[in-house]
Amino acid sequence: MGMKKGQQTKQMILGRAAALFNTEGYTKASMSDIMSATGLEKGGIYNHFGSKDQLMLESFDHAVTVCGNRIKEMVDEQPDSESKLCAIVDYFTMLAVNPPIAGGCPLMNTAIECDDSMPELRNRAKLGITRFLRFIEKIILDGMGTGELRGDLNPADLAPMLVASLEGALMLGKLYDSQAKTNAVARFWKDQIHSWKRRASK
Amino acid sequence: MGMKKGQQTKQMILGRAAALFNTEGYTKASMSDIMSATGLEKGGIYNHFGSKDQLMLESFDHAVTVCGNRIKEMVDEQPDSESKLCAIVDYFTMLAVNPPIAGGCPLMNTAIECDDSMPELRNRAKLGITRFLRFIEKIILDGMGTGELRGDLNPADLAPMLVASLEGALMLGKLYDSQAKTNAVARFWKDQIHSWKRRASK
Repeated sequence: MGMKKGQQTKQMILGRAAALFNTEGYTKASMSDIMSATGLEKGGIYNHFGSKDQLMLESFDHAVTVCGNRIKEMVDEQPDSESKLCAIVDYFTMLAVNPPIAGGCPLMNTAIECDDSMPELRNRAKLGITRFLRFIEKIILDGMGTGELRGDLNPADLAPMLVASLEGALMLGKLYDSQAKTNAVARFWKDQIHSWKRRASK
Repeated sequence: MGMKKGQQTKQMILGRAAALFNTEGYTKASMSDIMSATGLEKGGIYNHFGSKDQLMLESFDHAVTVCGNRIKEMVDEQPDSESKLCAIVDYFTMLAVNPPIAGGCPLMNTAIECDDSMPELRNRAKLGITRFLRFIEKIILDGMGTGELRGDLNPADLAPMLVASLEGALMLGKLYDSQAKTNAVARFWKDQIHSWKRRASK
């Protein structure tokens, strides 16, 4: 059973608007850019979203859902905490070359653009980052619980460290249009994560 | 001997425009915002800068010079590589609470805003980051040269790792309006940097 036509149009608008906002920024991408990207008249867009603000919020949520599903998929198929954490590193390496939504990480892009304005988008970006940090903390805690990872790790410190450096690395990769620096950061983290494993007692 | 009046006005415009662009973004801050911030008429600004583009470029250079001077000052007064690298960490902690230019790091803000547009600003941000990476690499290399730091370090990998995570941490601090996560990243790096010291042979 497919979606109804109106629902299909709404999803098409969300997908294209999300890519445009994530690439150009919420301020810079205008309604006429979204009309060009969707091939719709202004009325056809307002038919589904009451205002540009409403479209921005729903596009952000759409982008976060798509990216969140992708990262969960990559993590869930891994058997243990070390490989789940490495999958998060790989997700960011992939974000630079083959992102689920054009323009990179919607959480960081929104957090930076909306720091001093657009409070509702900023709150959603904050909530998204908080969830992502909890997701990483839980993987570390689970690994500590099963004895796979060392007992002296501090997940509440390591999770923001991991997110900060991977988001920052993504920014460097985009700026240089090169994966060299992002790959250096990925190597650093894979070594670190490996060092978090509990040594087998002899 | 003070600056001539015209020169003083130009510097005043640069200081206020730099803060505005660094807080609001280059696209969002308009000429009328700059008129309000400086208390000048449009003609009084165009008298010193031929266009908004010209003002944006000179404001960016001004912001980078001010921030670059501050970080060099903090680093130069340290006696060895470990404390110089820790001073760079401290500079980022300070950027969140008492930045030399309002709005945080002009390199990261510009890099992110101008990734897919405004190529001249993007090139200058790239050059700024490249210089900053070289500056950090040189501190690590100097420490390896004197035997203070371990010989197996890879400065070309560590410098982008340090910059990526400190810039990312700054973003998290701004988003949460809290230093907790930034401080966690600073602690992580100070421990890391300490571990780069060559162990005294016994």
